[in-house]
Parts: sequence; structure tokens; C-alpha cells
Amino acid sequence: MKIGILGTGTVGEALATALIRQGHNVMMGSRNVTNEKIQDWVKKTGKGALAGTFNEAAAFGDLFFICLNGAFAAAVVKELDPEHVAQKIVIDITNPLDFSQGNPPRIMERYMTTSLGETIQHLLPTAFVVKTLNTINYRLMIDAREVNDGKHDLFLCGNDATAKNQVKHFLVDNFHWRPENLIDLGDIKSALTMEAIVPFWVQVYRSIGTPLFNFKIVH
Amino acid sequence: MKIGILGTGTVGEALATALIRQGHNVMMGSRNVTNEKIQDWVKKTGKGALAGTFNEAAAFGDLFFICLNGAFAAAVVKELDPEHVAQKIVIDITNPLDFSQGNPPRIMERYMTTSLGETIQHLLPTAFVVKTLNTINYRLMIDAREVNDGKHDLFLCGNDATAKNQVKHFLVDNFHWRPENLIDLGDIKSALTMEAIVPFWVQVYRSIGTPLFNFKIVH
Repeated sequence: MKIGILGTGTVGEALATALIRQGHNVMMGSRNVTNEKIQDWVKKTGKGALAGTFNEAAAFGDLFFICLNGAFAAAVVKELDPEHVAQKIVIDITNPLDFSQGNPPRIMERYMTTSLGETIQHLLPTAFVVKTLNTINYRLMIDAREVNDGKHDLFLCGNDATAKNQVKHFLVDNFHWRPENLIDLGDIKSALTMEAIVPFWVQVYRSIGTPLFNFKIVH
Repeated sequence: MKIGILGTGTVGEALATALIRQGHNVMMGSRNVTNEKIQDWVKKTGKGALAGTFNEAAAFGDLFFICLNGAFAAAVVKELDPEHVAQKIVIDITNPLDFSQGNPPRIMERYMTTSLGETIQHLLPTAFVVKTLNTINYRLMIDAREVNDGKHDLFLCGNDATAKNQVKHFLVDNFHWRPENLIDLGDIKSALTMEAIVPFWVQVYRSIGTPLFNFKIVH
């Protein structure tokens, strides 16, 4: 499969590297293709690894991930060529976190009542945005078995049932998530509550001392 | 022990009844002591059950619970006589939820950056406010064994370590919580993230179809 990754931070690089290991072709998209970090990654990774602009990575992918900093994700998405995103699945991992008041962060004020996930769907009306993976550490994103033998829960939401189903399969096939642990929270409006729990996640991380944990729903 | 319960809704009544079964004396506090509901409760419950005003219930308790509607909790707390609350443990279960935009609720705008828990501590500077129990259904509050044999996590925060310790013991002794599942998230400022996850809890409830669940941290 051809996959675009918008954002070259820790999360983007971890996803890209994991997906290449799974046999996919991955283009990492950034503002400036010539930056050293991304060129190093392409060289280091070898076969299947490409670098491009944000628009090129979106155009390249059969689906693409958005793992940009919450502060400028919407601005980047707004500049994407609508032709390159039409009918594509967009996996949104962003979190609109504001660290200006210290740690744990808060939700950025402009996303307190309309989530970043919903904003992205609004900016890409012909794409199928699925919000997921934003509530866990990047090492769990790419391999659910990192904790408790994969028995813990991941949430997702989005407007299109088929797209959510495809994302579920993608997570199971590539990142070792168990189907029974993928919990559909409804349409993209649910991104508001999924983003809202991230400061709590940070608080728990600070309290228990490791980011390698997740929540499991018991009933 | 003498316990005050401020608020006579589902949560307040469940707590009061459970605590009387544990052998405590409980005064339920309300705006209007003569209301039928609270008088019925006193009659029905019998020995150990009392009714009073908010101020009387706070004065009565060696410790007291606040389980008022988030919309007017601060206004009630502001009217409490400082003499009646000095040096007492106050267990704050409130959630500042705004249902005006539908379900799931949002956090009330005025508590988005300063939590209701922190507001209550500010209004009662000589009391030891401990925020806990706000992230679960009332049936789990009073008996953790309702799900998964009690193996799931409860969070608490507050400024005073001794008070938090006493609340932990109280939860273990009266409501069957396991000590290893009581997670201290730090000072009362952490109430912000503990309140922020409640709309997410509601979303999960709607998705899985039962309020009898909780989150367990796995790592």
C-alpha cells in the first residue's frame, strides 16, 4: 500500500518506519523536504522510504496520516490540494495541546468546543477523516502488544462507517491491535472527547512514571 | 463516623444509604429540608439517617461529601459557614457538565480552565478538599466489586497528603476499593483533567451500552 505521513516528529517517524517494515511504501511529508532529519531518515530506512512536501505525501498515499503539531495542523491541512485528498481515508492523530501553562498541558482554547479532528474533517469535506491513536504513546500505536499482551482499548471515530472499518483492519494488520479492543465512539464530533482526555493521560503518565500504559475498559 | 452529604440526587442518596449500612450516621443536606424526597429517605432508612440544610450537614459531618449539580455547587459552597468546614475533609464528586448542546455533555465554559474541584478548595481554604469518585457510575462508587471483581482504577487528587490517605482508607473500608487501584494524581489542580474525562466517559457509556464499567490502567 502507498501511505503518506504528514508530520516528521517522533510519532510520524515511528509510524513511517513501522509501516515500511510491514512492506508498505511510505512518503513522509514536511514543510521543507530538504531538511536534514527527513533526508537522514530516507537514507537510513532505504527501500520504500520517500520524502516529499505535505501535498506530495497526501497525493502519494492511498491513505495518509496526520501527525502534525496541533498548533499548526489546521493551517497545513487548509493548504492541501483538494484533488489529492478526495475519497481518501485520513487518519488523524493530532492533539491540540497547549503547554504554555506548564505540564500537564491543556486543550488549546480554540479547540475546546470544536475539536481539531472535526476541524480537519471540515477542511477536507471530500475525505474520510478517522480520529484514532491520539490517546496513547507512539510505541503502543505501532505495536499494541507493548503492554498487557495487546489487551487494552483504542478508540476511533469518524463519519464514514466503511472508512472506520478499513482503519480497524489496518490497525489489526499492521499494528497488532485486537479487533475486540477497537471501540467505535461514533461520528467525528466524538473527537472532542477523545482529545479532551489527553491531558488526563499526561497526568497519569506523570503519576505512574511510564508512558507505556493504556486504559482498558472493564465491565 | 458522622458524615454529611451535600446533595440529594441519585449519587447523594446512594452514598448516604451505603454509608448507613456501614454503620455511619449520615445527614443529607439540601436547600429545603422539608422537601418530600429527603423526608421519605429519612423515614425509609431509619436509624442513623438525618436531614438538614447544606450548612447543617456540613456542620454535622466529621467529613462531608459534595455531590451537587455542577451548575450550582460553587454557589452552595460559598454560603457554607467557614466554622463548620475548618480542618475537615471534603470529598468532592461534582462534575461541571453542560448538557445544553446535547449528549455527550461538555465541560461548563467557566470551569474549562479552572476546575470546579479547585474552585471548591479556593472557596473553602481551611478544608482539605479531595476530588475523587467523579469518574464512575454511582453504583461503582459505593461498591467497586460491581465490575471486574474491583480490579479497575479510581483517581484522586488534593493538596493534603494526610487527607488523601484518609480518603483512601475510607474508600477501601466502606466501598470495597482495592488500595492498589487508588491512583493519586497530585494536588487539587489535577481536578481539571479528572473532570475533563467525564464527557469521554459518557461517550464510552453510549458506545458500549452500560454505565457499569470503568477504566483500568494496564502497563
